[in-house]
Formats: sequence, structure tokens, C-alpha cells
Amino acid sequence: MKKLINAPDDVVDEALAGMVAAHPDHIRVEDPNVVVRKDAPRKGKVGIISGGGSGHEPMHGGFVGLGMLDAACAGAVFTSPVPDQMLAATKAVDGGAGVLHIVKNYTGDIMNFEIAAEMAQAEGIEVTAVVIADDVAVKDSLYTAGRRGVGGTVLAEKIVGAAAEAGADLATVTALCRKVQDNVRSMGMALTSCTVPAAGKPTFELGDDEMEIGIGIHGEPGRTRSKVATADEVTELLAGPILDDLPFQSGDRVLAFVNGMGGTPLIELYIIYNKLAQICAGRGVTIERSLVGSYITSLEMAGCSITLLKLDDELIGYWDAPVNTPALRWGL
Amino acid sequence: MKKLINAPDDVVDEALAGMVAAHPDHIRVEDPNVVVRKDAPRKGKVGIISGGGSGHEPMHGGFVGLGMLDAACAGAVFTSPVPDQMLAATKAVDGGAGVLHIVKNYTGDIMNFEIAAEMAQAEGIEVTAVVIADDVAVKDSLYTAGRRGVGGTVLAEKIVGAAAEAGADLATVTALCRKVQDNVRSMGMALTSCTVPAAGKPTFELGDDEMEIGIGIHGEPGRTRSKVATADEVTELLAGPILDDLPFQSGDRVLAFVNGMGGTPLIELYIIYNKLAQICAGRGVTIERSLVGSYITSLEMAGCSITLLKLDDELIGYWDAPVNTPALRWGL
Repeated sequence: MKKLINAPDDVVDEALAGMVAAHPDHIRVEDPNVVVRKDAPRKGKVGIISGGGSGHEPMHGGFVGLGMLDAACAGAVFTSPVPDQMLAATKAVDGGAGVLHIVKNYTGDIMNFEIAAEMAQAEGIEVTAVVIADDVAVKDSLYTAGRRGVGGTVLAEKIVGAAAEAGADLATVTALCRKVQDNVRSMGMALTSCTVPAAGKPTFELGDDEMEIGIGIHGEPGRTRSKVATADEVTELLAGPILDDLPFQSGDRVLAFVNGMGGTPLIELYIIYNKLAQICAGRGVTIERSLVGSYITSLEMAGCSITLLKLDDELIGYWDAPVNTPALRWGL
Repeated sequence: MKKLINAPDDVVDEALAGMVAAHPDHIRVEDPNVVVRKDAPRKGKVGIISGGGSGHEPMHGGFVGLGMLDAACAGAVFTSPVPDQMLAATKAVDGGAGVLHIVKNYTGDIMNFEIAAEMAQAEGIEVTAVVIADDVAVKDSLYTAGRRGVGGTVLAEKIVGAAAEAGADLATVTALCRKVQDNVRSMGMALTSCTVPAAGKPTFELGDDEMEIGIGIHGEPGRTRSKVATADEVTELLAGPILDDLPFQSGDRVLAFVNGMGGTPLIELYIIYNKLAQICAGRGVTIERSLVGSYITSLEMAGCSITLLKLDDELIGYWDAPVNTPALRWGL
């Protein structure tokens, strides 16, 4: 295991310490490992929180700040945060207008966010939750009943965060988050495995000439394992099932998100994007907004995922709205 | 060789096509592989151009846009662009106020930028050049007489770009670029090699338990090869020589830049940053600005580099100024 780490048990704590040292104007970190927007709570603003296992950076802590999340709970690597973290996050951001939990569809995350929501409600904080389950690769998975929550979560957090920043109430941001979930689809692939520091060995084995299509962000099995294909073929294998699933149709406007898994250089993501743009054009689907980079990762896994979100003017407006977080920043 | 590419010869062309497809509001691409700011040339504005081999994305094309570069020349992977590209870039951005070439110190880059400058001057365009040579690791290197140009280039392009955007004249931006070069120092390390697509095999070999300190961004040999150390030890091995070189002294204010080499996940870069912040504090050096992420890469190499820039109010002002490029975006 070759990593730039100290003791495996200290990875998350030290990374969070580094993060707050690098971004003191955006965030603070509260026990137990909750990244909180510097100026939270904001009176009268709906709080938006998310969280999950670490190892997917910049998700979620890198999305805390103006126009996106108010707090993020960082679990151990590839391990759900505990209810105490979600409760602490909920209380830290409660400005009296309620709190939305954006939850990726993993069994542990769902269960722990539900417990935390009950605890928060018992303390008088109104909480709603929306589960993101956008991965079309498989029906059920290693840690998930139903579809996994992946890249669509980044888009949901940006869009919902913008609405909350603009003063939307809890019912409105909750409905908006469901709208994103209803209109977003994703699928990923891997060229290599990744190694959880505490495990010390690769999560799965993949031959020197193999790739896995439909991989999960924790290395959960995908649809097929095959010989490595070209970038164009990989893009077809991901984009086809995504486009067919919603389905995205001629005349649709979309946000196209090409995401790196952590170990894939940007030059390769742009090659994927190039083909994706051709595929969308060929189907009469217009890419109106895009995002290319490593935003929801799997440690040092080499690979990528594609996410398409069907847009309308409301979603475009919230996507374009100012955001000021460690990982996404524009309009300010 | 496992990569998300099609034919090795098409990597740069397809990546640039993907880049312009993803960022049509920021950039256009002109033959031969020159990334140009969408609204260039701007009358009366000094043009800022750079360039170099591809494989270091987002450098340089990702830094083209308002407040940073006006154009970037993309060579083949790890290969200097040719003078025709630099001449085309110079002409594309010439608004009548002259053009500054920011050149990383590699023999091919220097030679080709010099030829292009002569050709441009013969066509009546005033051209100056500043060479960035900030890598303290080694005195001479595989493709370099003197120090290599590495992470300091990112900072120079941001700061000088801001000055040009604000209307500074050619002499002023040229002097400012020299000031950045005089005050910036860097050093990098690798946990793994990388593979140039056309070569098809790793640039160098590194044992499963080895790291190389002082590596160049093309895999050029560094100072020492040793067993993999902890993140804290690695940070000491990089930060010590950087701090001692300028030297950075107690009371200095700095911009601290922790850069990923392309295959290293963000969670590890924050662990490095955490230790770097402690080291700087221990020496009485105040980090006033920071940048953490993969901005000058070496394909999929795992590793990192550290860059420190001594700041004053002028440099801070230009660093904070609005920038709107594919890879760096704030204040707008």
C-alpha cells in the first residue's frame, strides 16, 4: 500500500485538519468530524446537510459553504457516519427553518440519518430527507437495496444549496431535491481497484488488462468485467444505459458531468467528455451545462463515471447561482 | 498500459476537443493546438501566453480565461510545443499592447519560445519572456539547464494574469512575473511512475516500497530514492529544502500550494497540507493564502509537490483578483 498517509487510523482526522487549515474562510470542523459552514447557523435559512464515508473527497466536506451544504458528516473511510455526527451537524446548522438531509442510498447511511432525524425532531428541529439513488448499473448492490447514490448527489447538493441560499423553505428545497433525484442518472467504471488504508490491500482484484463497467464508489461489483476498451467504447458503455434509463430523449437539455474516480488524470476525463458530447448530439440531447473533474471519488481508483441531469430553466438557474466552497466556486 | 484513451496519437487532439466542448464560454481551440481565450484578442490588453508539453492538465489550457492566460500552447505529451504554435498563440492574443511569454525552464520550451518571439517581433508584436525555474530539487536535470519550472508557474500565471487584466503594461507585467519567480520555490515527489501513451510503458521504474523525492514533472530523476515514508516525513523532506532555499524566514507571509501529480487523491493532499501548515507555523512563516489540488500534473503519477510563494500586499491583491478559467474560478 503506497499512500501519502501517516497511521491509517489518523487519515480522516488529519485530512479534515488539513482541510480546515487550507479553507479557514469557508469551514470549521466540529467534533465528531463534522465539517460546518463557517457562518452556520444562519437564522431563517433551511440547513442542508449530507455526509457519508470518507474516501470520496472532495465530497462531501469540499461542498460546504455558501450556496451548497451547511454541513457534512465524515465517516471513516468507506464507512457510514454515525447518528451522533448527523445529529451534531443538524443542530449546528439549524437556523429555525428546518434541515434537509441529502442521503446517498447506502443501507448504513439511510439507517443512521433516520435515527439522527428522529433525535433532532425530538429536540424540536424539523427534518426532511431525500435519498439519492442515481446509479443505473445494478438493481441492488453490496451495501444498497435499490440503486446506489453516486454522482447525482453532487448536482443535487449544488442545486438544492442554491435554493436554500435564496431563501426557499423546507418543503420547497425538499421537493427540489426529489426533482433532481427524479431526473438524474449515473454509471461508473474502474480501470483499477483502490485500497482502504485500514485494510491495507486492494478492495478487489482486477487483471492488468481488465476493466469493470458499472462499479460502485466503494468498489462494489458492477455489470461486467471485460478487457480494457477504448475511451470511446467505455463512454458508449456508460452513456447508453444512462440515456436509455430515464429515458433522455431528443430535445432534452442536460447537465453532463464526467467525474474522475481519484486516480484518473484530467486529460483522460476530457477525452471521455469529447465522446459523450458526440453521443448526446447524436441523440438530439443538448448539453447546456457541464462539469468535468474528480468530485466524487474512490480513493486512488482509476476510472470515471458519467452523470446526466435533465435540466429545465429552474434547475439551470440554481446551477448557475453563486457557490463558494473549497471544491466548487463561482459567481462570487 | 491502462488508460481511458483511444489511439495514443489522438490523446491531445481529443482532450482539447473535449475541453472546448466542456468550456465553450471560456475558450476556443485554434490550429495547431492552441487554446485561446474566447474573447481574445482584447484591444489594449497585454497578452499573457504559456504552454508546454501536454500531460500536466489542467496546466496550461485550463488556465486560459479572464484574469489568467490569454492562450496556451499544447505540445504532444511531455514534449515542447513547436514555435509555430507559440507564434500562432502570440498573434491570436495580440491586442497591440505586447505579449508576455511565461516559459517553464525546459530546454525545448526555452528554444522554441525564443524562436517564436523573434518571429512575432519580426511581425511587429512586442514580446517579452520570463522563465520560471522554481524547483529546488536538483541543479540541472534531464531536459533542463538550471532549475526546472514547476508549480510556481501556476501561481505566476494567476498573478500576472490578474495584473494584465487590470490594465498593467508589458513592462509592468514582465517585472511582476520576475518578482514571482524570485519569490517562489517548489519540490515534488513520486510514489509511482507514469506512462506516456505513445511509449506504452512507465517512464521509470519504482519499487513497490519505494518513493522518489525531488522528482520532475516528466519523471526526471530527483534527489533520493528511498523506502516509502509517512506523509509527515515526506512533507518535511519537501518543505525543508524549500524553506531553506529562498530562504523563507520568520515573519514571512506565504501562499502554500500542495499539488497532486495526477494519481493522488485529494484526501492525501490535505494530510500533506496539514503537516505543511504545522511546519510553516513552527518556523514563524504565516500561510496567508493556499491552494490544494491537482493543478500541474504528470499524467497518472501518484505523488505531490509543494510550492511556497513569499507574498506581499501586491501579490495578495493579484492572487485574490477575479479569475474565470476552466480550472481556477473565483470572484466572478
